[in-house]
Amino acid sequence: MSTLPIGIFDSGVGGLTVLRAVRDRLPHESVIYLGDTARVPYGTKSPATIERYAVEDASFLVEKGVKMLLVACNTASAMARERLRAEFQIPLLSVLGPGARMAARVTRNGRIGVIATEATIESGAYVRAIEDASGDKQVEIFARACPLFVPLVEEGETDSAITRLVAEQYLAPLRAQEIDTLVLGCTHYPLLKRVIGETMGSAVTLVDSAEATAEETAHVLAQHGLLNQVPGASSSEFYVTDAARRFHRIAEKILGEPLPHLEAVEIWGHDRLHTS
Amino acid sequence: MSTLPIGIFDSGVGGLTVLRAVRDRLPHESVIYLGDTARVPYGTKSPATIERYAVEDASFLVEKGVKMLLVACNTASAMARERLRAEFQIPLLSVLGPGARMAARVTRNGRIGVIATEATIESGAYVRAIEDASGDKQVEIFARACPLFVPLVEEGETDSAITRLVAEQYLAPLRAQEIDTLVLGCTHYPLLKRVIGETMGSAVTLVDSAEATAEETAHVLAQHGLLNQVPGASSSEFYVTDAARRFHRIAEKILGEPLPHLEAVEIWGHDRLHTS
Repeated sequence: MSTLPIGIFDSGVGGLTVLRAVRDRLPHESVIYLGDTARVPYGTKSPATIERYAVEDASFLVEKGVKMLLVACNTASAMARERLRAEFQIPLLSVLGPGARMAARVTRNGRIGVIATEATIESGAYVRAIEDASGDKQVEIFARACPLFVPLVEEGETDSAITRLVAEQYLAPLRAQEIDTLVLGCTHYPLLKRVIGETMGSAVTLVDSAEATAEETAHVLAQHGLLNQVPGASSSEFYVTDAARRFHRIAEKILGEPLPHLEAVEIWGHDRLHTS
Repeated sequence: MSTLPIGIFDSGVGGLTVLRAVRDRLPHESVIYLGDTARVPYGTKSPATIERYAVEDASFLVEKGVKMLLVACNTASAMARERLRAEFQIPLLSVLGPGARMAARVTRNGRIGVIATEATIESGAYVRAIEDASGDKQVEIFARACPLFVPLVEEGETDSAITRLVAEQYLAPLRAQEIDTLVLGCTHYPLLKRVIGETMGSAVTLVDSAEATAEETAHVLAQHGLLNQVPGASSSEFYVTDAARRFHRIAEKILGEPLPHLEAVEIWGHDRLHTS
């Protein structure tokens, strides 16, 4: 069981920031990645649709035989993590929890900003998770949807005049709130770290939930006795639902290396296979 | 037969610019609109996926009983119009043809620009269609993908500093080519007409394929004896595959009126029902 891979899914390429952090933190673990590129993005769609897609994604990975599920998409985490926990009997971690817990831990003035997709922000899931993680600590949370950040990243506009103008428009209200911590609540956003950091100023700590998630993944595996003890045999497999060339282009930029194995698969109906 | 509705589909809301033009030109005709909002956008996906989605969209409308199909999505037109023509036995018009023919007609200096999604531009379909439509007339065509225009329109950024900066970046090379005609090769783009027009300058004619398509629709129906002769009984039905609130918001902006009827439907597998 402990030699089985970790399953990671996202609506597209963004979750590769999580995969990279997991491989860095847990080099002995094998991973299987699924990007639902045929239906990307999730962040502009309705809760019911996002939940259905997330169940199909997870079902695909569970059928592949994974020992743990990582929901590397904040939108899917916000909409579907309870449904996924109910449906699947293996350890499951979603990026939303680790990010929220880290934000609660690092804030000094208790003023925390969250930026994410429209669907994630509208769900209120981050606000609730940060409040839960803060316990008795008094916090005030300022949430803001940044819908143009994902297309900007996907077009490679990670550090351009356009991106700086968009960042200024989205982030000026958060800067005015004098937050000291900002959660990057979408797995694409770490690619905009420089622009976001410069727009917010150096006094604001950026929380990259990819790293927080990798750290917690190690704990969860240890807790369940699932850490791989056999060194040197780890592997990475990549699946997408649409093999558009742009996935390659952006994926290799995120990973900083060529994709070793990429297979296009159909996943629709996998939820029905699973639940019947 | 002639009293049946016209079926119109798009990946999302953009095709409503075509629906509006059809209703203006053909007020006696009933229309059924399908927006594949659960899988929008198409313009960043691969040819095989776009073709499959287009066949599913068309199958849904054909099962609803339409007398004619309008492919109101340039990306689906570019990738799937031949497959759709082979598959369905009713008159079919895609936005790509009328736009290309109008561009060939209006250019004076033979220098024509085309802007569209990445998938549409990569397919080369517009260049071929304009060359075909030009006959002996000598034309030179300059094509350019504008991937950020769709998200900008969907975020309501139709006339902002951000949009002007993006437009300048995308369109400056076309301006330098001294084109006199620019095809808006994506149904979202007419919503950016003002910014695009001002960026290109008043000497450039913008071709809005929605209007060209409505005009050709009238001809195709007349040719097949399918024009509705019963006045006063026309209706509009709207279907989406994902009932996100944003569809409402953008749709009502495009139509300039509240949506009278909107139903969320599942269409995946409709192609298999159809072909089996």
